[in-house]
Amino acid sequence: MNRELNILEQRILKEGIVKEGNLLSVDTFLNQQMDIELFDWMAEEWKHRFEGYPIDKIVTIEASGIGIACIVSIHLGVPVIFAKRADHLNLDDEVYTADVQSYTHKRMTTVMISKRFLNEGENLLLIDDFLAHGNALKGLISMADQAGAKITGIGIAVEKGFQEGGQLIRDMGYPLESLAIVESMDPASGKITFR
Amino acid sequence: MNRELNILEQRILKEGIVKEGNLLSVDTFLNQQMDIELFDWMAEEWKHRFEGYPIDKIVTIEASGIGIACIVSIHLGVPVIFAKRADHLNLDDEVYTADVQSYTHKRMTTVMISKRFLNEGENLLLIDDFLAHGNALKGLISMADQAGAKITGIGIAVEKGFQEGGQLIRDMGYPLESLAIVESMDPASGKITFR
Repeated sequence: MNRELNILEQRILKEGIVKEGNLLSVDTFLNQQMDIELFDWMAEEWKHRFEGYPIDKIVTIEASGIGIACIVSIHLGVPVIFAKRADHLNLDDEVYTADVQSYTHKRMTTVMISKRFLNEGENLLLIDDFLAHGNALKGLISMADQAGAKITGIGIAVEKGFQEGGQLIRDMGYPLESLAIVESMDPASGKITFR
Repeated sequence: MNRELNILEQRILKEGIVKEGNLLSVDTFLNQQMDIELFDWMAEEWKHRFEGYPIDKIVTIEASGIGIACIVSIHLGVPVIFAKRADHLNLDDEVYTADVQSYTHKRMTTVMISKRFLNEGENLLLIDDFLAHGNALKGLISMADQAGAKITGIGIAVEKGFQEGGQLIRDMGYPLESLAIVESMDPASGKITFR
């Protein structure tokens, strides 16, 4: 690889921990401790990459996408909502739902977005921290489709390029901008390479 | 009540929906759609109320506290971490855990914070969206205690003043600053009063 690594990739190399089962722990800056300066850079990067795209609203999914999406909301100046796990008692009667197979949790979760927050014809930017098999994105896409909203962009922090989610989402025709695409990672040596 | 309502209280009056079972839905600005300008005001308010208090780190709990805590992190200029549900496969071996009875979910959840992110002697500001029975806060306090960290302040957006959590936390001696304390709310009339 000849190009210079961006600051997210550098951070993954420095602090990411590769674990058995294709797991990449980035708890020190992305999904337990949250580095807001890094999120600022990520938001600016997506702002640049999606320049000229119509974006009315940012949509993410709990939990790790929320912090990132809030910072993107500041940079783009549009509202932000998140899909919630639908085990809540205070569910709206009027919700869109989708079943999401969590890669990390190894279980099925139903997520929901109130119908009040997704409108027909609205242009959505989906934001999430990780993309592996694409299940969370498929859930968000399903709810957007139910609402008749349009997904004009998808911003992912870390894509696991060796799993099928990225290809699948690109094949569906969505503009997908992953800020770091992990090409390979080895739990034995800890070595990580980027696309 | 003679005093002028603050902007969070005004927003609760305008958009909050009282439901059976002591539930208050504030999905339009706090815990599904997130109003970042409101979060900015909340962060500034806590910054003012906790002026002079030593704060090294902000700690919240997934999911609805995350967005608020990120904005507070920007305003206070200190790192932010969140306690995660401990059903994750990529758990660190070295974590603090606590069992939290969720009022909204009506079930017990184990949450965890990696030991790397809570240090002895560190001054913590706990942030969360709701305080009802205080179970989430008790979980965060337990993990802080396990680490030997000190809680110098607790910032809550909406406290249900008619439930016991606020009193319990104040009786434990923690400086608790709730930006809106709901004194009563009636699902039949929809009427909400503040302390």
